[in-house]
Amino acid sequence: MATQDQVITCKAAVAWEANKPLVIEDVQVAPPQAGEVRIKILFTALCHTDAYTWSGKDPEGLFPCILGHEAAGIVESVGEGVTEVQPGDHVIPCYQAECRECKFCKSGKTNLCGKVRLATGVGVMLTDRKSRFSVNGKPIYHFMGTSTFSQYTVVHDVSVAKIHPQAPLEKVCLLGCGVPTGLGAVWNTAKVEAGSNVAIFGLGTVGLAVAEGAKTAGASRIIGVDIDSKKFDIAKKFGVNEFVNPKDHDKPIQQVIVDLTDGGVDYSFECIGNVSVMRAALECCHKGWGTSVIVGVAASGQEISTRPFQLVTGRVWKGTAFGGFKSRSQVPWLVDKYMNKEIKVDEYITHTMILDHINEAFDLMHEGGCLRCVLALHP
Amino acid sequence: MATQDQVITCKAAVAWEANKPLVIEDVQVAPPQAGEVRIKILFTALCHTDAYTWSGKDPEGLFPCILGHEAAGIVESVGEGVTEVQPGDHVIPCYQAECRECKFCKSGKTNLCGKVRLATGVGVMLTDRKSRFSVNGKPIYHFMGTSTFSQYTVVHDVSVAKIHPQAPLEKVCLLGCGVPTGLGAVWNTAKVEAGSNVAIFGLGTVGLAVAEGAKTAGASRIIGVDIDSKKFDIAKKFGVNEFVNPKDHDKPIQQVIVDLTDGGVDYSFECIGNVSVMRAALECCHKGWGTSVIVGVAASGQEISTRPFQLVTGRVWKGTAFGGFKSRSQVPWLVDKYMNKEIKVDEYITHTMILDHINEAFDLMHEGGCLRCVLALHP
Ligand SMILES: NC(=O)c1ccc[n+]([C@@H]2O[C@H](COP(=O)([O-])OP(=O)(O)OC[C@H]3O[C@@H](n4cnc5c(N)ncnc54)[C@H](O)[C@@H]3O)[C@@H](O)[C@H]2O)c1
Ligand SMILES: NC(=O)c1ccc[n+]([C@@H]2O[C@H](COP(=O)([O-])OP(=O)(O)OC[C@H]3O[C@@H](n4cnc5c(N)ncnc54)[C@H](O)[C@@H]3O)[C@@H](O)[C@H]2O)c1
Ligand SMILES: [Zn+2]
Ligand SMILES: [Zn+2]
Ligand SMILES: [Zn+2]
Ligand SMILES: [Zn+2]
Repeated sequence: MATQDQVITCKAAVAWEANKPLVIEDVQVAPPQAGEVRIKILFTALCHTDAYTWSGKDPEGLFPCILGHEAAGIVESVGEGVTEVQPGDHVIPCYQAECRECKFCKSGKTNLCGKVRLATGVGVMLTDRKSRFSVNGKPIYHFMGTSTFSQYTVVHDVSVAKIHPQAPLEKVCLLGCGVPTGLGAVWNTAKVEAGSNVAIFGLGTVGLAVAEGAKTAGASRIIGVDIDSKKFDIAKKFGVNEFVNPKDHDKPIQQVIVDLTDGGVDYSFECIGNVSVMRAALECCHKGWGTSVIVGVAASGQEISTRPFQLVTGRVWKGTAFGGFKSRSQVPWLVDKYMNKEIKVDEYITHTMILDHINEAFDLMHEGGCLRCVLALHP
Repeated sequence: MATQDQVITCKAAVAWEANKPLVIEDVQVAPPQAGEVRIKILFTALCHTDAYTWSGKDPEGLFPCILGHEAAGIVESVGEGVTEVQPGDHVIPCYQAECRECKFCKSGKTNLCGKVRLATGVGVMLTDRKSRFSVNGKPIYHFMGTSTFSQYTVVHDVSVAKIHPQAPLEKVCLLGCGVPTGLGAVWNTAKVEAGSNVAIFGLGTVGLAVAEGAKTAGASRIIGVDIDSKKFDIAKKFGVNEFVNPKDHDKPIQQVIVDLTDGGVDYSFECIGNVSVMRAALECCHKGWGTSVIVGVAASGQEISTRPFQLVTGRVWKGTAFGGFKSRSQVPWLVDKYMNKEIKVDEYITHTMILDHINEAFDLMHEGGCLRCVLALHP
């Protein structure tokens, strides 16, 4: 069946309103315009940013929309001028674009690309500032430039990473967000050296990927901090070799870590999104050189604080988005690393489901036992 | 007159109580014990840390004490085991020690030395936890391990930088604090590259030294920010090539700088000690890579804050103490650079006086026209 240039009607989970269950709808997906790519999404995972926007707490969240940003699929058709991918290519849609032309891309200093941000930030495509999704003629906003909770989606070509055609899409979909974020926080943002002491706050997918990154970087002590002691068993498999549950201590957690490490850790990572923990993560760093990386995303309007003396005495406060990876260039490299068994992916997948059960999948996110739940869109 | 092994009675400015005028007293200075050096201080400048402790706002300030930490002099005698300096050596006493043996010194990552901190932090010497200063038998606390508002002082040997014997002590005394702090913030902490855009908040001695450091590093735009427009003329001589007075704008100063620089600066420096300006300095940095360095010292208990998103989108928050310079190793190198006319020093000295007028010198610090006032102790 030739779908090119045709509107495709398919199933998608639509968030009609904040905090109301998603509804599986028949959605019309318009053909890709110039510089756009239409992708048949085969698998998508759920991430906290989806849940956050869905909850209505994100002031920039727009409804109705199609959420989802951790996925893999196959190019169905491409718009005018698209040269780097073609129908049939296996791809991962990336919420961090990489145009290789803007001030950001050319700086050599960051993975943040400015090219399509103005459009993706407001749920539309760049060419005509319109959505490609509709339900009975009513437009549905895009989300993060990806909208992967749909059997077909349209994205900007600068947001498509072409990957190895043999990569198992039901696994490597995770390389669209959480896993690269954790690995890159260690490898690109902190640049952890062999022999370092590391503290990781929050042992969800992102924190575990930080642990794996730290282990491969040769860190010697990898201290996992979580209020849910159930995380500690699985965390061992990812390289965490010491555990601290803040609930077991009366002292502030930064003090616990400082005492445990004779002055503090060389690197710390906040992988929760809690501003008080961000402060603790900075303050448990060693005087003189300790570097803390904020990975978790805090709710809008919340602020971090500390005494400036913490920085004047040599601590460094940083953050990371998508682990500093350049999406189109480096996601394919991560896929290859996975295929060469150099990085884990399968181990993060605790649940699989079909799209129809997406609301249950969101419920699972709040349970300690779930790392990533992968949804099949064309089962 | 052989003074070695003798108590020396000399003039010193004693701070008997917080916020009360300093009193020129006859002070008894005990001979140096093992690992200590007694220095005849010839010239000392005043710095804000002196004024801050004197004001009583520093909760760690101890009284009575002898303030002062930006000075130069000649070794009078040395205690047992001191090998690196001998009587007659020209020296700069350094509030940042450098023992070359502690965890900090050996890390290769910081100039903060841990060796004598426990003693200098509480106004005494390490060997016996006592002061070498007294007035009629009443002990007077040391300050920052330097106490240079005295004709003679006793310091730990790890805090003494031996400098070129021909260096003019009435000038190079400034290399004991403010000037290295500014230069090092640029060269060591931020590592500004050629072509960078820089914003400097506060154009006192420290901010002007940042400007000079940025200029020698090849920065192209050096934007000076000060609420006192009188600073702008002199700042030009130090390399500042654009000026912003926050009072001339209704917008927050971070927005003014972002607009002026098409997205923000590559590096910013806070050289005031004001926590709101520290926030502005971070937030005027360019998304993706801008780095802000806190140089100013805020009052105790004050906190900095920002939205974590500022860091997640690539800004880096750092601080610096003594510009990251290793004191004993690098102060002599800075003195040589001054003698080779590679760095300015004379230009910061706006006033000279004798020790007796020290209270007037403190008054001058609050006037816009004063950068550094140098006191002669043996006129
Ligand atoms: N910067 C980025 O580019 C980026 C990308 C992806 C995800 N994220 C963010 O990373 C964070 C983590 O994502 P995830 O999928 O791993 O989440 P998750 O919910 O699976 O994991 C969070 C973990 O933190 C623990 N925790 C909660 N409060 C705690 C506390 N006070 N002290 C210690 N532990 C605590 C929880 O028990 C849980 O194990 C989220 O905020 C997410 O939005 C950021
Ligand atoms: N980190 C270190 O190792 C170190 C070493 C020396 C000095 N310091 C600190 O550096 C700071 C600067 O020292 P200095 O000797 O140059 O001080 P200074 O008082 O001579 O200069 C401060 C300048 O800031 C300006 N200013 C004040 N409020 C301002 C505002 N809101 N916006 C813009 N400009 C403002 C003043 O007009 C003045 O020109 C002090 O806090 C001092 O304690 C730190
Ligand atoms: Zn995500
Ligand atoms: Zn770009
Ligand atoms: Zn000083
Ligand atoms: Zn040391």
